Amino acid sequence: MNEVTRLLKAHRSIRKFTDQPVSDEIIDEIVTCGQAAATSSNIQAVTVIRVRKTETREQLAALAGNQEYVVSAGAFLVFCADVARPRFACEMQGGRFAQGMTEQFLIATVDVALTAQNCVVAAESLGLGICYIGGIRNHPQAVADLLQLPEDVYPVFGLCLGFSAQSPQTKPRLPLSVVLQEEYYPAHQNQQAIEAYDQQMRDYYRSRTGGKKASSWSQEMRALTGKESRPQLREFLSGRGFSMR
Amino acid sequence: MNEVTRLLKAHRSIRKFTDQPVSDEIIDEIVTCGQAAATSSNIQAVTVIRVRKTETREQLAALAGNQEYVVSAGAFLVFCADVARPRFACEMQGGRFAQGMTEQFLIATVDVALTAQNCVVAAESLGLGICYIGGIRNHPQAVADLLQLPEDVYPVFGLCLGFSAQSPQTKPRLPLSVVLQEEYYPAHQNQQAIEAYDQQMRDYYRSRTGGKKASSWSQEMRALTGKESRPQLREFLSGRGFSMR
Repeated sequence: MNEVTRLLKAHRSIRKFTDQPVSDEIIDEIVTCGQAAATSSNIQAVTVIRVRKTETREQLAALAGNQEYVVSAGAFLVFCADVARPRFACEMQGGRFAQGMTEQFLIATVDVALTAQNCVVAAESLGLGICYIGGIRNHPQAVADLLQLPEDVYPVFGLCLGFSAQSPQTKPRLPLSVVLQEEYYPAHQNQQAIEAYDQQMRDYYRSRTGGKKASSWSQEMRALTGKESRPQLREFLSGRGFSMR
Repeated sequence: MNEVTRLLKAHRSIRKFTDQPVSDEIIDEIVTCGQAAATSSNIQAVTVIRVRKTETREQLAALAGNQEYVVSAGAFLVFCADVARPRFACEMQGGRFAQGMTEQFLIATVDVALTAQNCVVAAESLGLGICYIGGIRNHPQAVADLLQLPEDVYPVFGLCLGFSAQSPQTKPRLPLSVVLQEEYYPAHQNQQAIEAYDQQMRDYYRSRTGGKKASSWSQEMRALTGKESRPQLREFLSGRGFSMR
């Protein structure tokens, strides 16, 4: 264990921020750290859009399911998977871009996440708190319109950054023994470990909500995966050029 | 700038490793740091498989396009996107899993990448070098068979970890001004900046290869995106339950 691993293990999402602004220098430093992450074949399929305008932030907050910290955070970034830039480069060289490959969707999405996580680690090391905003995929077309995203670009998630005005506890995770396996995927799911984690999460929710929420992990998973989630996404992506061939 | 941002910006892939083994304690610490990353709705859709057996490593190295460091690295991990576990939890609660949603494919893939990047930062802070292995997607079905992956699980990438036996320079990235935008996606691609970066990459490749490789970024992008990449992926994913609806 060292300072870095301590920092990583101390992560929790922050949803209340002070008024202290986040300077351009800090954002530049954070995104530069993001760019240093590995990228598949150096494609760098990422564009980060910093949204400053309050009006745009308010619209994004509403589209993301009324997450007001999209407005109140010191800075708000939208991380976009971007194969429009490599396409431009390919065409600069007289090539013909092979649009809509599943592999391209995948590497661009992974590039975005690797970049963003480096940004998060940098931000937390600089004393900021963060919160990922997957809710911008609720209405992906409206978000794309607001940010004037062209074909071959899609918004993966937003990121709130700012100086924290709260200090929540870290959220318990599944036991390492469930997540880290040796040689093979196990033949059976470890129900006992999941039930133990369920109990831990029930206690966690109870303590965080003063007894109001008493759900378990598997109950949350039933609610999350037992219904069609964001069915609009496929058609949206296909309309952007990410057509999964 | 602090020690963490310095560490992040110093990243480069390592492909030559010493014989020094990587202890179980270090891998546990690294994956625990990985688990601390943000996860969409706490789904934790990640399973990490540590492959120790030389025979399996040799098969994976061959499948990944003869990348021998898959065998020689102190440790080799395969990061799998896993919605089989949340599905099991959903069904434990009497729910009916909504299979094949694009959103699930997306959040599982993002979860894996956020987790892996935290693992990478932890590993580098502990003095290890790393290399992501996207090449395991060359033959995804063979990899899935080797690791006995069930439905609803797919291998996103591998990760070599070990003590470095080389010290390559960092690879230049696109200028920050290209990647970080204000308010909107730009109306036009910045061809001038791309051409300047092309020149920088030509110099980088030349210096790294002793003059043998003199390609530019846009030439690399033409080679990469000007052809169908991994067309087998879509059918493979669809057969796993990731059917993009």
